[in-house]
Amino acid sequence: MFFKRKYSIQNISKFIIGNGKEIPLINGQMIKSINFDNAASTPILRPVADYVEEFYPWYSSVHRGTGFKSQLSTEVYDFCHERVAEFFNADINKNTIIFTKNSSEAINKLSYRLNLQKDDVVLTSIMEHHSNDLPWRNKCHVEHIKANPVGSLDLNHLASLIKRFGRKVKLITITGASNVTGHINPIDDIAQMAHHAGIPILVDAAQLAPHRAIDMKPNDHPCHIDYIVCSAHKMYAPLGTGVLIGPKITFKRGIPEYCGGGTIKSVTQDEIHWASPPDKDEAGSPNIIGAVALKKSMDILEEIGMNNISQHECQLMKHLVTSLQSHPNIILYGDNQSIHPQERVGVLCFNIKDLNHALVAAILSFEYGISVRNGCFCAHPYIHHLLDLSPQEIRIQQRQILQSNFHNVVGMVRVSFGMYNQMKEVNYFLNAIEEILEQLGNNYYQKKYLLDRKSGAYYPRDYEVNFQEFFPFFS
Amino acid sequence: MFFKRKYSIQNISKFIIGNGKEIPLINGQMIKSINFDNAASTPILRPVADYVEEFYPWYSSVHRGTGFKSQLSTEVYDFCHERVAEFFNADINKNTIIFTKNSSEAINKLSYRLNLQKDDVVLTSIMEHHSNDLPWRNKCHVEHIKANPVGSLDLNHLASLIKRFGRKVKLITITGASNVTGHINPIDDIAQMAHHAGIPILVDAAQLAPHRAIDMKPNDHPCHIDYIVCSAHKMYAPLGTGVLIGPKITFKRGIPEYCGGGTIKSVTQDEIHWASPPDKDEAGSPNIIGAVALKKSMDILEEIGMNNISQHECQLMKHLVTSLQSHPNIILYGDNQSIHPQERVGVLCFNIKDLNHALVAAILSFEYGISVRNGCFCAHPYIHHLLDLSPQEIRIQQRQILQSNFHNVVGMVRVSFGMYNQMKEVNYFLNAIEEILEQLGNNYYQKKYLLDRKSGAYYPRDYEVNFQEFFPFFS
Repeated sequence: MFFKRKYSIQNISKFIIGNGKEIPLINGQMIKSINFDNAASTPILRPVADYVEEFYPWYSSVHRGTGFKSQLSTEVYDFCHERVAEFFNADINKNTIIFTKNSSEAINKLSYRLNLQKDDVVLTSIMEHHSNDLPWRNKCHVEHIKANPVGSLDLNHLASLIKRFGRKVKLITITGASNVTGHINPIDDIAQMAHHAGIPILVDAAQLAPHRAIDMKPNDHPCHIDYIVCSAHKMYAPLGTGVLIGPKITFKRGIPEYCGGGTIKSVTQDEIHWASPPDKDEAGSPNIIGAVALKKSMDILEEIGMNNISQHECQLMKHLVTSLQSHPNIILYGDNQSIHPQERVGVLCFNIKDLNHALVAAILSFEYGISVRNGCFCAHPYIHHLLDLSPQEIRIQQRQILQSNFHNVVGMVRVSFGMYNQMKEVNYFLNAIEEILEQLGNNYYQKKYLLDRKSGAYYPRDYEVNFQEFFPFFS
Repeated sequence: MFFKRKYSIQNISKFIIGNGKEIPLINGQMIKSINFDNAASTPILRPVADYVEEFYPWYSSVHRGTGFKSQLSTEVYDFCHERVAEFFNADINKNTIIFTKNSSEAINKLSYRLNLQKDDVVLTSIMEHHSNDLPWRNKCHVEHIKANPVGSLDLNHLASLIKRFGRKVKLITITGASNVTGHINPIDDIAQMAHHAGIPILVDAAQLAPHRAIDMKPNDHPCHIDYIVCSAHKMYAPLGTGVLIGPKITFKRGIPEYCGGGTIKSVTQDEIHWASPPDKDEAGSPNIIGAVALKKSMDILEEIGMNNISQHECQLMKHLVTSLQSHPNIILYGDNQSIHPQERVGVLCFNIKDLNHALVAAILSFEYGISVRNGCFCAHPYIHHLLDLSPQEIRIQQRQILQSNFHNVVGMVRVSFGMYNQMKEVNYFLNAIEEILEQLGNNYYQKKYLLDRKSGAYYPRDYEVNFQEFFPFFS
């Protein structure tokens, strides 16, 4: 590239809106906020917001609008599809790019559009987010590929499932990276195994796309990714857009599960003739601004360089893991023997012995201004597996949840990095953990915080915060 | 209210982003753009964009995030649900508010969630947008309530359908206002007829909510609206949000058609326990920023006053209709005898004799900078009805569309007002129409423009515009 790069891994933290914004602690002080919950959602990039603002005056409805702005918007919207294809190196002659509202919609859409029959088989895995598990369950027979004790995918089990179910398997669907352990799955290997058996694969790239370059490869390549989904809200462009890419032929067939405006060529009172992909699968007025935001975020990610992002996040992760490993009272989950960019994104789950995961998360938030997430991360079966719960223990867990009695519900504390996080933030976090560990055994925090049994969250006693003072929503 | 109002029907045009933005004409001049395509999508309000910008630094993931911003965002997101309920006067104790990406998703969602059986009956109407027609067709038996020749709903036919199908009718679904004729349906009367027969109603308020106050009324009121949908992109907040409101009991039942993250309480490898509404029906990470935008646009609409909006738009419409009625070469569609705010939103369809609708739209765009829409407006059956096409003529139309031969495909030109449109813009438009009419019969425009048969659009000969010069999307 011949232009001077404006954004780099060194300076990107300055371009994250709200990064370091001051928030209140329970001691009355204001402190710069730290966000270690990027696996849930990332904050928005300043250049994405600016680009959207620049687009606003030109924004108009797409599809057949004849006005200048409408034609411009249509051209821009079409281009956003192409840009997303380019980001994943998808062949646009053979594939279609469908904008959805998030990855969950994208996976649900595909679960309908594959026209699965009840005795068809879909192989998903035990490490999936619910959004890549539940949509398949009520449409066909689902088998979960097992994981080994530390949570890595068991490829031998995958091979045995392929052998056992053969041609009945209509799809192997697998996360690019786990939102719990950060493990990156060996997509090339899985694709080869699948294609060797004539089975297409879906990669849920929600957790991978913000952190690693992903190459769908030519449609006839043995390691080709047949279908991919991702979410803009995990890619610094949280304006309501997700993506589903897959072969045009899949979406030319059948009828879309959502239909209406934009999806048709011709309608009479008795007949419907469908439009071509992707229009057929984008019912209603599309979210053009969300697409424009995603396009810009992809530009920025590539300008920074996916390799620079992965190296930086991996450094943070190595430091975090090696520091926490030294504490006997900390339990780490996942395979933490080697932290390699090819094998791991910046996600780590842990627990502190004898301290509830929700209490740890509350302390980090209220006393240190650090956002993490705790609980089961929309991946209950994987958590049960990592915690090695017996069927009996799982039943007890379930009963407690259904009774809204979260006192003893299991979970973990999750740290997840974005490209803008800094080593000094990790050190500040490690210092916080040290201080928390120092109080272990004296019930200090248990006395200071109260459990809301119905939600499972802990709150400091006698402390209330008025969010309206910070952002005026009630007006 | 005790605060000074900042926004009024008199000044709101100044707060529309891109309103009057200069665009190029084919004669090389730049001219202030005029948008008369508000029924498709409205531009964005400046205060909505500013409010979103104010929210960005606080934006974080909702649902169980323990960080300060996550808790703030959760509180804001929950409040947005309440604010939307308040806008429609929905009882939040009995109803749930589900955010979707647009009205089309909202209607599709309901079509699944009513658990319709093949021999159930849904009564929709011939005047519906495809999005309130197609989603019902593959799920049960659909009957279309007829319209009279000018396009008003035939309530006698509705009564006869209710009588004929009785308890088999599970829903009467009707648009609040037509996106073609602008006719406002008598919702109170329809609700009473429906409820008298024990049938719930859905009002597709996409075209009505930006223009008139809508009161869902208490759930036990005879004129109660059971279900309502609307779209933020038609309400000056185009950031990917739609709304579905309906009784909690409907959404507590059954399983959501889209599932995954956020929709569950507990999951094992064999069992799923669903969350309560609305979470159960908002799969995946929600578009919080879109919800915040919609909340703000509702604040602004109410500050201006829905009555002021309706009176203003009605004045524009009266002037437009009375002016166009005087031209013998203009055909107006719909009931244009009386233009009353209770009966008509600011939408008018017309044709100029012997001039293709797409050509008229192109001339208005390329020579006057006026955006309108032409075609069949995602309401083919209604257009066929208004044009009084025979079944044979409809078949010919359909064949031409499927052959991508748009030379003789019927349609209309549509003008649709937003609250920010001005009388001077209407006059400028009327002047443009006068000039176009002066050239009738001499083939002037037919020689100047070329038809793209595959799309049906007309473009000036030897004229190209580089949109990239106006908005840099290709970078």
